[in-house]
Amino acid sequence: MDEIEQAATPVAPIAGEETGEQQGARDLLLATASQIMREGDQVDISLSELSLRSGLNSALVKYYFGNKAGMLTALLDRDMVAIVRSVDALMAKDDMPPEEKLRRHISRCIDTYYAVPYLNRLLMRLVRDSDEGESRRIADKYLTPLRVAYERLISAGVAQNKFRPVDPQLFYFTVTGAADRFFSARLVLRHCYGQDTLTEGLRDRYREHTVDFIMAGILAHP
Amino acid sequence: MDEIEQAATPVAPIAGEETGEQQGARDLLLATASQIMREGDQVDISLSELSLRSGLNSALVKYYFGNKAGMLTALLDRDMVAIVRSVDALMAKDDMPPEEKLRRHISRCIDTYYAVPYLNRLLMRLVRDSDEGESRRIADKYLTPLRVAYERLISAGVAQNKFRPVDPQLFYFTVTGAADRFFSARLVLRHCYGQDTLTEGLRDRYREHTVDFIMAGILAHP
Repeated sequence: MDEIEQAATPVAPIAGEETGEQQGARDLLLATASQIMREGDQVDISLSELSLRSGLNSALVKYYFGNKAGMLTALLDRDMVAIVRSVDALMAKDDMPPEEKLRRHISRCIDTYYAVPYLNRLLMRLVRDSDEGESRRIADKYLTPLRVAYERLISAGVAQNKFRPVDPQLFYFTVTGAADRFFSARLVLRHCYGQDTLTEGLRDRYREHTVDFIMAGILAHP
Repeated sequence: MDEIEQAATPVAPIAGEETGEQQGARDLLLATASQIMREGDQVDISLSELSLRSGLNSALVKYYFGNKAGMLTALLDRDMVAIVRSVDALMAKDDMPPEEKLRRHISRCIDTYYAVPYLNRLLMRLVRDSDEGESRRIADKYLTPLRVAYERLISAGVAQNKFRPVDPQLFYFTVTGAADRFFSARLVLRHCYGQDTLTEGLRDRYREHTVDFIMAGILAHP
């Protein structure tokens, strides 16, 4: 929502105004696409809805991103860069014990999927529809750093007798699976049980449940 | 694969032959659709590919199922009925302790998603594209029995001091999330890391990992 508010703020008429406005329109398109995916619980969006909701001409998609696929890639970039940076920052805290790092990381995964519940589906979609070079770029830029971070974190915890020795790659699926599956089940909960998963109360309950579960699964019991 | 082999077996020329052949063609369409979804890691299938792979005229889809959506519903029925029956049979074993029931159930979930990795996406797709009555039917027939079984199993375990008191609905997401997320990540593993998740070796490793993790998360520690 920050992006929308920023973009709506009048830009001061000084040098660089056009650059500021352009950045605003580009960010606004991404923020609106993100909102549409989040509300509709899917990654298929129509340019006419995007134009209607953002108030911007859909030709701007071509101008900023080349085409719709380019815009989806830019949205994945926006969302994944935030995650990779947050994991890097957590890993760099030398004084923090591994179990506290992991606890915080799991909490943030739940919060991330609450904010951008379409993230995993967007990633799958772009990997499927991209050529080999682009799939490789996505893997190198977003997936490899996370894999490396998990490997480092788990071996640090094992070395300190805090964690059981678990496979970091399988563990990655345990964490993202728990986060992704909950919020991507939104439609089922809404249509079948009249519930909405995207409430802060349910997010908080699920965050606590998931941190408890995954920590119990990895902690070494002396 | 059983269905494909059955359908390929020549039917003896006795009374009821037509019914047998019809059942064979119907099952073969479903088995082929299932294979295409499993291999392609998606729930979008084309009728021309279905016809080519099954050797059957695609007009038979209209004959047996009305349309493609009807065929997708029949496939969901086929796959979900097997799960609900297996959970019912497990719950009916009065002599088995709750933790053993749960351990077996989690193992079976991994095996199920290995066999039909598209299952959750098919469920989501049908809930999204169906009207309210059909969504309700899907929920009543497949989701409610599982929810009720989880509630009974967890309260039995809590009453015997075997389980921590965890929320059965959140627990459902923990289990199916772990199963679904792994096999639906197949394309990412293949495109980005040159690995295939659909091997029996990786399935067995992930089954053991997941059973360990989830049991550690729910077992009460005295």
